[in-house]
Amino acid sequence: MQENNLLDSIRPISTQTMAEVVEARLREYFRTQSFKPGDSLPTEVELAQALGVSRNVVREALSRFRMLGIVETKKKKGMTMSNPDILGAFEKVLDPLIIDDVTLQDIFELRLVLETGLADLLYIRKTDKEIEELEKIAVAEKSSNKFRVQNEIAFHGKLYEMTKNNTLKRFQTMLLPIFAYVITQEEKPIRGKVSHMDLVNILKKGTKEDFKEGMLAHLQPHFDRLQKKTPKRPAKI
Amino acid sequence: MQENNLLDSIRPISTQTMAEVVEARLREYFRTQSFKPGDSLPTEVELAQALGVSRNVVREALSRFRMLGIVETKKKKGMTMSNPDILGAFEKVLDPLIIDDVTLQDIFELRLVLETGLADLLYIRKTDKEIEELEKIAVAEKSSNKFRVQNEIAFHGKLYEMTKNNTLKRFQTMLLPIFAYVITQEEKPIRGKVSHMDLVNILKKGTKEDFKEGMLAHLQPHFDRLQKKTPKRPAKI
Repeated sequence: MQENNLLDSIRPISTQTMAEVVEARLREYFRTQSFKPGDSLPTEVELAQALGVSRNVVREALSRFRMLGIVETKKKKGMTMSNPDILGAFEKVLDPLIIDDVTLQDIFELRLVLETGLADLLYIRKTDKEIEELEKIAVAEKSSNKFRVQNEIAFHGKLYEMTKNNTLKRFQTMLLPIFAYVITQEEKPIRGKVSHMDLVNILKKGTKEDFKEGMLAHLQPHFDRLQKKTPKRPAKI
Repeated sequence: MQENNLLDSIRPISTQTMAEVVEARLREYFRTQSFKPGDSLPTEVELAQALGVSRNVVREALSRFRMLGIVETKKKKGMTMSNPDILGAFEKVLDPLIIDDVTLQDIFELRLVLETGLADLLYIRKTDKEIEELEKIAVAEKSSNKFRVQNEIAFHGKLYEMTKNNTLKRFQTMLLPIFAYVITQEEKPIRGKVSHMDLVNILKKGTKEDFKEGMLAHLQPHFDRLQKKTPKRPAKI
């Protein structure tokens, strides 16, 4: 028989705060009751009584749900389930100052993955009018006094917009401060062999495969940087 | 001169709750003071006094920061800034039951974009040992009684793991319930011409470009579905 440490089966006392416990219980309650957006919820007082905790704790937990957009309170209708803004909460934590370096690097890589993967959606949905607009952006940046990062944002932001996927577009907008942060930390600006204008021309006349190759060449310097920086740590599951 | 509606310049009274106002003010305070993870923060009482609001409201706002992992309270050390789990909050809202259909579709597309974009990271970081493990997964699914969705998750999850990007891997794990939800809503299961085993063989002997083509063919039926479903709405900026 395997020798077990005598303390293996004793679990530490939960260090969760009451608000966390109530949050988890309410989450479970919402799920088992299959509440859908618009459905009315019990009042704060009723929930406090049912859970046997103080109203203050329930208010704290509900405040968290309200922040996430899972619950909302409307005049006359009272408290209801709501359609959460799935990126809203994510946005609130994306601050380069408090995110650790490994995660910053992860996010930067995520951008590269997204941009090389965009081509398929783009080629399904791009319109001539949008390509014209993109071209104007690429032309304007040549005579622009703006910082390079701002030109990058304008051009690549337009590409995301052309996918007609709002979640993707917003996701990119949110990640921008992180990209800008990583880019300004570079020793010297790096540029790929394929320029923004080259990409516009590919969109006009080239195939989807041409565009994928072009975007990759455009971002290649970033991938080269990654090659030197592959993390030692194994991926946690 | 343009005729203006007389009421154009009057703004509605803010409908923000006090907790929202305090949350925003604290967020600004953290930023202007450039607090970094580990830095000590003033106490709840001190913050309430400085803001001129009740302790309850401050507690509610701090509870939100605690949920996001921006602030933590430790014995002896008191309240400090913390390293947020950037995907933690996002995870809490990803419930197919309460997310609207357009967003569900957006997220599904996001998956397709990620998977076709993965190739570059994969080819920088894959190891022979991992390809062997991936092969075992592809072999096992042929004789498996599991639902198709579970086989999909095992195989594609392993691919994400091979990128050594934890954020990407966790992101995928979180999005899985959404993929599963969209897939089970399909009229009939759709399969691409390139199988999981084909992809394994490409990883063994093929180039990055071969893999990109292969993954695209594998996912093609999903893109075909999208082509029919391109949203009418313009992308909001």
